[in-house]
Amino acid sequence: MGPAATVDLMQKVIDATPARNDQDHIPLIVWNVPQIPERLAAIAGDGPSPVPAMREGAIWLARAGAEAFAIACNTAHYWSAEIEDAARLPLLHIADAALSALRSRQLPPDKVMLLATTGTRRARFYDDRFRRAGCDLHLPGESDQDRISAAILSVKAGDDVRARELLFPVMTRLQAEGVDAFVLGCTEIPLIVRNSPFEAQSIDANAALAHAIVDFSLRRSHAVTDAAQHGNQMA
Amino acid sequence: MGPAATVDLMQKVIDATPARNDQDHIPLIVWNVPQIPERLAAIAGDGPSPVPAMREGAIWLARAGAEAFAIACNTAHYWSAEIEDAARLPLLHIADAALSALRSRQLPPDKVMLLATTGTRRARFYDDRFRRAGCDLHLPGESDQDRISAAILSVKAGDDVRARELLFPVMTRLQAEGVDAFVLGCTEIPLIVRNSPFEAQSIDANAALAHAIVDFSLRRSHAVTDAAQHGNQMA
Repeated sequence: MGPAATVDLMQKVIDATPARNDQDHIPLIVWNVPQIPERLAAIAGDGPSPVPAMREGAIWLARAGAEAFAIACNTAHYWSAEIEDAARLPLLHIADAALSALRSRQLPPDKVMLLATTGTRRARFYDDRFRRAGCDLHLPGESDQDRISAAILSVKAGDDVRARELLFPVMTRLQAEGVDAFVLGCTEIPLIVRNSPFEAQSIDANAALAHAIVDFSLRRSHAVTDAAQHGNQMA
Repeated sequence: MGPAATVDLMQKVIDATPARNDQDHIPLIVWNVPQIPERLAAIAGDGPSPVPAMREGAIWLARAGAEAFAIACNTAHYWSAEIEDAARLPLLHIADAALSALRSRQLPPDKVMLLATTGTRRARFYDDRFRRAGCDLHLPGESDQDRISAAILSVKAGDDVRARELLFPVMTRLQAEGVDAFVLGCTEIPLIVRNSPFEAQSIDANAALAHAIVDFSLRRSHAVTDAAQHGNQMA
């Protein structure tokens, strides 16, 4: 996928880690190989599948000793079950991470809306996972989605001013219509929303995924420590 | 090593890559496992060697298909030959990358000084490699080194103001004494020098390493393309 999203996720893992020194940081093995077929075209049936390349990466992570894996691309979660099967590793799913982040809020929101690419919308995994967990996820209408997609392209092209001009009026109107939380299911949208009044009502799915990675790793190392201590007590 | 230096290097690889889309970016496999013994203590003879852990990582990179490797930590280059032997992969050496960056300047400097941690100084690979290439590398005196080390610690502690107060008077005086270029052989120092008047006279070794990675990868993929085209012409 795009390497910027991988670097963004790694930085957010560092930011979310309670570390006093290098050794406290989360061990990460990273397969950052963007030479894989376009995800959006594949979902639309217009191009080759990225699954073989993603499987290869996930299998390598498992062989190298990974105990779980995460995917730093929302759209690519469309194929998450196939990759999980191939790697025989648990996936820390970005939609589950976003849902946990939403639930940890003091006042869980009533009306939650997904801001994402058309590819992620079409992939439907956010809606499915939120619905199964009893949370209805709303989607923007078509003309709003066009502006959101254009805002994402503006960020990719480095035009943050244009991105804000496109996105903020849409978010303002959606809030007026009763939306009280946004799930930012795209790695570019948090860059637009950062330091804006919308930040407090928004869940950055990539940041939520970073927290899920840190939580998994800390629980895992505590489990190992507890087992070792228990072993010592028994000996 | 420290995960922040790895993320910094990856971001600089992205910045240095002439990419029009995701697929144009450099494929990177990253072993970011900071649970390895302290490098500085090991060089001083006060702690266990980090070599077994670094070897394990490098061997995994080779097995996963890496064609060359780089180390996102200046000090750890102390053991570069042992890691290179174990991985049987060419190392893109950070001191060679800094030397190339220095030479690509319009006016190659006369008097070059290394700003680094005491561990990197003690490791001596910058001096050795620069001398072999016919470039004398100067080192700061002891009291200057103490201020440089304190500035690095200030950045690590998040106090950029204090870091500048410590480092800039030293650099100003060194320039007055005839130093006309600085090699920033530490991933923290570029964060202090960034956007300062010293930036134009400084080589960021981590940025130079990122350029070396991009150059290697582009030469490699051109070589593959040329061979394929040649094969087609012969067929």
